[in-house]
Amino acid sequence: MRLLVSCADRPGILAAVSRFLAQAGANIIHSDQHSSDPWGGAFFLRMEFALPGAADAEDLRRAFGPAVAAPFAMTWSLWDTARPKRVAVLVSRHDHCLQELLWRWRRAELGAELVLVASNHDDLRADVEAFGLPYHHVPVARDAKEEAEGHLLAILRAAGCDLVVLARYMQILSGGFLDDLAVPVINIHHSFLPAFAGAGPYDRAKARGVKLIGATAHYVTEELDAGPIIEQDVIRVSHRSDVAAMTRLGADIERAVLARAVAWHCVDRVLRHGATTVVF
Amino acid sequence: MRLLVSCADRPGILAAVSRFLAQAGANIIHSDQHSSDPWGGAFFLRMEFALPGAADAEDLRRAFGPAVAAPFAMTWSLWDTARPKRVAVLVSRHDHCLQELLWRWRRAELGAELVLVASNHDDLRADVEAFGLPYHHVPVARDAKEEAEGHLLAILRAAGCDLVVLARYMQILSGGFLDDLAVPVINIHHSFLPAFAGAGPYDRAKARGVKLIGATAHYVTEELDAGPIIEQDVIRVSHRSDVAAMTRLGADIERAVLARAVAWHCVDRVLRHGATTVVF
Amino acid sequence: MRLLVSCADRPGILAAVSRFLAQAGANIIHSDQHSSDPWGGAFFLRMEFALPGAADAEDLRRAFGPAVAAPFAMTWSLWDTARPKRVAVLVSRHDHCLQELLWRWRRAELGAELVLVASNHDDLRADVEAFGLPYHHVPVARDAKEEAEGHLLAILRAAGCDLVVLARYMQILSGGFLDDLAVPVINIHHSFLPAFAGAGPYDRAKARGVKLIGATAHYVTEELDAGPIIEQDVIRVSHRSDVAAMTRLGADIERAVLARAVAWHCVDRVLRHGATTVVF
Amino acid sequence: MRLLVSCADRPGILAAVSRFLAQAGANIIHSDQHSSDPWGGAFFLRMEFALPGAADAEDLRRAFGPAVAAPFAMTWSLWDTARPKRVAVLVSRHDHCLQELLWRWRRAELGAELVLVASNHDDLRADVEAFGLPYHHVPVARDAKEEAEGHLLAILRAAGCDLVVLARYMQILSGGFLDDLAVPVINIHHSFLPAFAGAGPYDRAKARGVKLIGATAHYVTEELDAGPIIEQDVIRVSHRSDVAAMTRLGADIERAVLARAVAWHCVDRVLRHGATTVVF
Repeated sequence: MRLLVSCADRPGILAAVSRFLAQAGANIIHSDQHSSDPWGGAFFLRMEFALPGAADAEDLRRAFGPAVAAPFAMTWSLWDTARPKRVAVLVSRHDHCLQELLWRWRRAELGAELVLVASNHDDLRADVEAFGLPYHHVPVARDAKEEAEGHLLAILRAAGCDLVVLARYMQILSGGFLDDLAVPVINIHHSFLPAFAGAGPYDRAKARGVKLIGATAHYVTEELDAGPIIEQDVIRVSHRSDVAAMTRLGADIERAVLARAVAWHCVDRVLRHGATTVVF
Repeated sequence: MRLLVSCADRPGILAAVSRFLAQAGANIIHSDQHSSDPWGGAFFLRMEFALPGAADAEDLRRAFGPAVAAPFAMTWSLWDTARPKRVAVLVSRHDHCLQELLWRWRRAELGAELVLVASNHDDLRADVEAFGLPYHHVPVARDAKEEAEGHLLAILRAAGCDLVVLARYMQILSGGFLDDLAVPVINIHHSFLPAFAGAGPYDRAKARGVKLIGATAHYVTEELDAGPIIEQDVIRVSHRSDVAAMTRLGADIERAVLARAVAWHCVDRVLRHGATTVVF
Repeated sequence: MRLLVSCADRPGILAAVSRFLAQAGANIIHSDQHSSDPWGGAFFLRMEFALPGAADAEDLRRAFGPAVAAPFAMTWSLWDTARPKRVAVLVSRHDHCLQELLWRWRRAELGAELVLVASNHDDLRADVEAFGLPYHHVPVARDAKEEAEGHLLAILRAAGCDLVVLARYMQILSGGFLDDLAVPVINIHHSFLPAFAGAGPYDRAKARGVKLIGATAHYVTEELDAGPIIEQDVIRVSHRSDVAAMTRLGADIERAVLARAVAWHCVDRVLRHGATTVVF
Repeated sequence: MRLLVSCADRPGILAAVSRFLAQAGANIIHSDQHSSDPWGGAFFLRMEFALPGAADAEDLRRAFGPAVAAPFAMTWSLWDTARPKRVAVLVSRHDHCLQELLWRWRRAELGAELVLVASNHDDLRADVEAFGLPYHHVPVARDAKEEAEGHLLAILRAAGCDLVVLARYMQILSGGFLDDLAVPVINIHHSFLPAFAGAGPYDRAKARGVKLIGATAHYVTEELDAGPIIEQDVIRVSHRSDVAAMTRLGADIERAVLARAVAWHCVDRVLRHGATTVVF
């Protein structure tokens, strides 16, 4: 089981949680805790624990609310490790991030279940179907974006997913779509945000003459490329790297960063904290 | 206050510790915990907590033993954050690691108090005395090593230090000296151990044609360059880097790695685990 | 065209080469040059140049020998950029390095042509055939190694390859096989050599408690894991990383390092220099 | 001697240069060449060569112009390796970048001669004078900036410097000052540009929740933090890093990046290319 907690910091939170778990016979395997400010900040906790064979996860969940969460006004969730998160992937034409997710899924490195891929193009169908995954082609006409989003939403809802990953999906999702979807969405942006938000980051990186290029995985919010950052990384470039070379080098960073962010999210290592994240 | 605990893992350890601290009115600022194996491994805990104004650290220490440590057969320590560790530095002729420690100490980045520098050469006296620190020249004659170690031991004992740092001290310390000293000793080795243990690592790195060189900070044990590793890092080299260039580039890694290891040790972030370390 | 030169250093080499190329109407696109020691060392040169439409590569090659190479006693090669190198891959059961090569080949990032995959196991046949590549299963019986090597040699010769890549091929190739093969062989070793040469590097890395693990791509010589290193990289691990986690993290470094080494070799960026390499 | 050349690319440039040097009896130690585009781009060349004992550098310089530079319309310079560049450092109150430069200068790692330090504060006088360097206190009153710049200019001119380094100098230099100064100025900015240009980069990095912070060394132009980038690097931060921790971690990157940029400039490894640089 994985327990995530965030609440206002004050003495006794960890004691209350760990006493509750000890009484339930749980063995705590990992425990990570963070206080943004020991006097008056926010408190974050992630615990991974094993229950004895006889224990019932639902009983635990029912008891935790009144016994521990309510007195501390916690925002919390309790995830059964036995149930991997269900993940849908949206993609356009670039295959590198998608391939990385497919490949790690097959190697059981993602800690999650891929359930479908949807795209505004039909190009990557064969790649996806080779992994035994359904591929949905949802074209986005310039003047019928809302309709396409409705179609997409129906597909995602029917599949019952816990997370949507934009693996270089080159369409901007509307705020209404995100609200209706009601599950987290992770995007990979091909720059070291906040530098080069928006279109054409590698062209702009070349023009500016930066010596490192990067990629950023973040939760999607209505504002473009401004959501809470989960993970970033960079790679060195030089005057020898033209835009095509930067695009190739950057692709390797994009897929690595996105794969890490998705894997961390799927084992509940990421908590939101306003416009930022806590990654345990 | 900083509490370090290691013991055999079993359910209820974290609950017992955090209940004890909650009853003492402590507010836990950081808590890190590691189980080498959830079923039958070793358990490690580091907690940083603040006591209310009225509380007494000595009372807490006296109570912790019978109440918490004994039932779990813990190895433990409780360090008062208000008392910085006292650190002695041994050095030979290379100044880069020493300068880094002196400079970070002056910037209050070390989380420790430097108390003296001792050396088998007199070269760096002016550098050290400029920082207002005592400098002891303890020459080591080839046939009077034992005598030199005795002299060194007397100096270190008189100063009352909690840690000794070998900042490129080019003498091998005997097992007897280490036993008598009875405080941890951290060494910086100028290679990525276990590669190139022993003398002349940069020459051997050049001859082998490695593409990265590194440095390793480790606790000193009687066996040369074999003690538990605290921190390592590397830097890229190429065919253009001759041994002199590797020595220059490596010096930057050495001082960075040693400074991190010393700073981490001094805020009790490092626990030994057999031949290895847990670094929280 | 790509020209590689190595010879004893002395004044006038670059002048002779570039005058020859200028007279042939060539435009030099890249030029890299290295002297291991300006007075009496070895000289290395890599030039990439474009010939005017009418020029003939074979004429150039015939003229270069007597006009330039002979007076300086050069070891040299001239490779026609239009002809990508033909690469065979040997693999056992781990698929990560193979997948990376297949995938980069399909994206045309390898600068080479994959021509076949051979393995001592049949496990990865489907993966390889999905890319339209022939897969040869060459089992290696414990007491019939020589026979297997003969079989392998016949396959590689029939395909006419310029490079053989060991993408986690878990068999040791004999000196006789390497001599008969007569093309370079690149291996990926799953450690930061010279640390942890031989079997079980991740187990030994865990036992030693290193804080970084790595991978090394090198040319294969008769002595195990001792050939000239082309590329190395590392990734950070901690006490939380068990051997399984190190194996997963290391796999990402292995595939990245091997892909870089193969790509660099295939565009003639790697020159041997005794037991080491010059990588332009 | 170090020769730097930039001009429009066309066949024969390298041949002309190397033939000229061969005739002068020079032995080329390093040669780096870059074409931004082999057909119609810009050509950059850096050559390091040794002249025979009898040769005269001034004769060579006089001959190079008409014989080689003029026909190709080159921008070029020829620097005598025996004359280290003279460097002045401007600083405000932060000492870390200054200390790094002083320390590397003393170790002869800078490839340059420090000649003076000037500051708008008097705080760091003792640190500087301990290295035997003159320290000039040039206060900048809010309404007398021009006067201060005049004072500074007089000091820098009197010392005869080839480079001015802003080692966390917290004053904006006017375009007029830069024009009158007429030598390159290198600044260190405490962010990964173009992210967080301007004031308070660490505060803004914390608020945005980035996972890496960085530093950028660039040539100063009239537009703030927009000049050609010479070097950048980053370091990982997490939710545990508050602004103070970021400032500490960032300081290590700032001093490393600035020291590299200054050292590279001082051995003529940096050529400007519009708003960017070529770093050989």
